[in-house]
Amino acid sequence: MTKKANTRYSILKHLSDRWSPRAFNDKMPERETLLKLLEAARWAPSSFNEQPWRFVIGIKGEGESYENLFEGLNEFNQKWAKTAPVAVFICAKKTFSHNGKDNKHFMYDCGAAMSNLCVQATEEGLYVHQMAGILPDVAREKLNVPDGFEPITAAMVGYIGDPDQLNDDMKESEMAERKRKDLSEIAFFGKWGESFD
Amino acid sequence: MTKKANTRYSILKHLSDRWSPRAFNDKMPERETLLKLLEAARWAPSSFNEQPWRFVIGIKGEGESYENLFEGLNEFNQKWAKTAPVAVFICAKKTFSHNGKDNKHFMYDCGAAMSNLCVQATEEGLYVHQMAGILPDVAREKLNVPDGFEPITAAMVGYIGDPDQLNDDMKESEMAERKRKDLSEIAFFGKWGESFD
Repeated sequence: MTKKANTRYSILKHLSDRWSPRAFNDKMPERETLLKLLEAARWAPSSFNEQPWRFVIGIKGEGESYENLFEGLNEFNQKWAKTAPVAVFICAKKTFSHNGKDNKHFMYDCGAAMSNLCVQATEEGLYVHQMAGILPDVAREKLNVPDGFEPITAAMVGYIGDPDQLNDDMKESEMAERKRKDLSEIAFFGKWGESFD
Repeated sequence: MTKKANTRYSILKHLSDRWSPRAFNDKMPERETLLKLLEAARWAPSSFNEQPWRFVIGIKGEGESYENLFEGLNEFNQKWAKTAPVAVFICAKKTFSHNGKDNKHFMYDCGAAMSNLCVQATEEGLYVHQMAGILPDVAREKLNVPDGFEPITAAMVGYIGDPDQLNDDMKESEMAERKRKDLSEIAFFGKWGESFD
């Protein structure tokens, strides 16, 4: 199942073909493939090259690594996430290493790193579903996240699966067309409200 | 001039070839190419599909669009940014449209959208240099940014230029090797500190 974006201007397939499924299949990605995803995240740009991102990976069937992460998802996400063979938590360092001051862009930079990870995943035929719906306190305890770092999102990773394994509401959302605001609503020329396209 | 990342695992060239130059040349990108960059940003994922990102574009020589944006950069960035033919400001909506509550991931999602823009830029042979160093209050006034939105970063966009047009310090940084933390410092298995690679 593919859900290519209905783009107005032609863009790279790694961006137009990416979407966030809830139905995965149980085929396990190669360890080397997962390392490529992390390598991609590693090379994202960041403010003062701080690289505030840290990743904790869980793989189904490998010790308690997967269960450890799974418990940090909220109730809604636990309903569907179990079909994915790989889980990732993203934790962020909130201060700059070079001066100890607050880094106002730690979230922004982590979003960029995860975006790189998604691009590489698409290259590998994998799908990624990022989740803001986590239980940060549970994740902190289960993953031993140290002070100064904060669990900010999680993501499930795997190959695409059969939507029939989802409940009716989730299946409907899985099959729905991908939608975005019109370019005229998000891109302005010179100042706010002046259309660029 | 290229500065390909020294990657440990092979990744997509759109990720390994991207870097943030300060020396651009004055060749103007096609309008359609810039629209592709924005289209790429448009299809990023976001929490509740809020799409908190808004872009304001300035093009050198087209009215006051470029100068409007340029004044919102801090002093350091104004030193080099003028070599780039295109400027972009990214502003973010800080609350969710569906319930009015704070969106804790607006920065994260804007980072993802800009990362998509960078990937498409690399596909088009363009370079992007993102900047946290902006003057938010100046930008708000010059760009007419409404309440509820916040200028969070800016970026210069263009084709690569000659480093000799930079001052000595900036030229040294322009020629320096790209560096990142080792994978073992940023990717853990199951819990914090356990190496994944």
